[in-house]
Amino acid sequence: MSFKLLILGSNSAAFAHRRHHTSQLLNIRDHHFLIDCGEGTQLLLKKYQIRLSRIDHILISHLHGDHYFGLIGLLSTMHLFGRTKDMLLIGPPGLKEIISTQLRYSETSLKFKINFKEFTPDISEIIYDHSKYRVITIPMDHQVPCSGYLFREKPKKRRIKKGMVEKLKISKPEIIALKEGKDISDNHGNIKYENKKLTENPNPSFSYAYCADSKVKPELAEIVKGVDLMYHEATFTNDMKNRATSTYHSTAMQAAEFAKLSKVKKLILGHFSVRYKEPDPILEEAQTIFDNSALAIEGTNFIIDEK
Amino acid sequence: MSFKLLILGSNSAAFAHRRHHTSQLLNIRDHHFLIDCGEGTQLLLKKYQIRLSRIDHILISHLHGDHYFGLIGLLSTMHLFGRTKDMLLIGPPGLKEIISTQLRYSETSLKFKINFKEFTPDISEIIYDHSKYRVITIPMDHQVPCSGYLFREKPKKRRIKKGMVEKLKISKPEIIALKEGKDISDNHGNIKYENKKLTENPNPSFSYAYCADSKVKPELAEIVKGVDLMYHEATFTNDMKNRATSTYHSTAMQAAEFAKLSKVKKLILGHFSVRYKEPDPILEEAQTIFDNSALAIEGTNFIIDEK
Repeated sequence: MSFKLLILGSNSAAFAHRRHHTSQLLNIRDHHFLIDCGEGTQLLLKKYQIRLSRIDHILISHLHGDHYFGLIGLLSTMHLFGRTKDMLLIGPPGLKEIISTQLRYSETSLKFKINFKEFTPDISEIIYDHSKYRVITIPMDHQVPCSGYLFREKPKKRRIKKGMVEKLKISKPEIIALKEGKDISDNHGNIKYENKKLTENPNPSFSYAYCADSKVKPELAEIVKGVDLMYHEATFTNDMKNRATSTYHSTAMQAAEFAKLSKVKKLILGHFSVRYKEPDPILEEAQTIFDNSALAIEGTNFIIDEK
Repeated sequence: MSFKLLILGSNSAAFAHRRHHTSQLLNIRDHHFLIDCGEGTQLLLKKYQIRLSRIDHILISHLHGDHYFGLIGLLSTMHLFGRTKDMLLIGPPGLKEIISTQLRYSETSLKFKINFKEFTPDISEIIYDHSKYRVITIPMDHQVPCSGYLFREKPKKRRIKKGMVEKLKISKPEIIALKEGKDISDNHGNIKYENKKLTENPNPSFSYAYCADSKVKPELAEIVKGVDLMYHEATFTNDMKNRATSTYHSTAMQAAEFAKLSKVKKLILGHFSVRYKEPDPILEEAQTIFDNSALAIEGTNFIIDEK
């Protein structure tokens, strides 16, 4: 099982240089998570041929327009297309009021139910707990309540070596116990199947951290430590450090230092300021600190997979 | 002085067939009015190289998303670009609450002032009175409070025939009186300048009517009677008449009959249903009733000018 991340938009604030506002689509075990939803995101989903019916979870980091102005339009289009499946909508306090107010004035009663979950700012909490993975909030440091999201698969079960079930005629209850790492005894209390002989280590559990708009915040390293892939905003290069600080944003160098500190495996940089016609200087700067860095270029897929 | 109307978007409900949601830009005497503002309108303004700073008036017909979801993004971009000029924002009750709620949660204090004017549904009122023209609401018949807008130049002054001012040495107060249609007398009470000999008829006063989403409503003919140009929605062709009625929309035939009844000079049809990959059948149907019909194709300019 792999994680697949599609970058839909990567620009900060205004549309510029053919770059759109922030939005990403994460696919975990065929569960699709739309992360942030700037104006026009539904057009980008159309462009990349993503069927809207596949998206059952939308996560908004904060209520600056470049991260959510496309949400009401997307929900409306889903309604028009006849969606009836529930939608999980996670975001900051206020999001429900904004969406509800707009639906009220358009006298729209959606054909599907929205399950709103508003995160608690400034703390890290498990905001969505699936049997196979968790989504945990990452409290960012921005001008308004803002949260990143950590997607972390739960530990997987051990794998029984190929052919062993048939060869030894292992029973179903025994299979379950072996996958949980237990040794199996016979009726006399002696070891019948030694776990380490019959099983292999579980598949790795993958993780992706989306660190939204923020001043760099080293204390978050504990939360995102060792993730396979981390997106971190890098609005500016380091010559603009003062401006980054005053606007509660990060530089490429700060993002890269944070990636190094957090020992993540790969870093993606995004939320480029309109001042960068091409974002290459942001990548170059980050790579002086953290080599395995990449840019959140629209249309790019990042895949976390087994080696 | 001409009116110039640029069609930015013309589709109803969902984005489809490369058509965008409803939006138009009307230029009267270099005053720019943005009429409706579906999602992505700011991108269309960019595409057609319209400087955002020129737009000082925005009019929203109703609170269905395809007519206003791009508004908050446009206002935010104007703010980011440093706008300080006031903006007149006309729309239905509720628009102020929606915009204010979004600005409150983003903790944005706009650098410019928005003068909100919410129209009174179901009546026709002068919503904006400029010295040279008026904007009058047209009460449509839709599922939610909805208003069209009639832009009508005020009667212009008479024009003094070429060379006469110099030839007869007409004084400034006399010029003003002549332009107002008066005869000028000498000190003995005799006619000094006969108005009809010295002046010509005023330039024509132009008018444009934007008839937004609605069931056809023949009683509006009195309001839009004889306008130079009328946009009327024509979501369907007449084989879909029942659907048009049940969704409070019009067919091309109904729009054309209304244009004929109202004795308008030219009709523009728009708000095409997604069922029409090409809107030609809508035009063909309308032209069987009202020959001077045209489609609201994106990027088209309609100009009302002196002959």
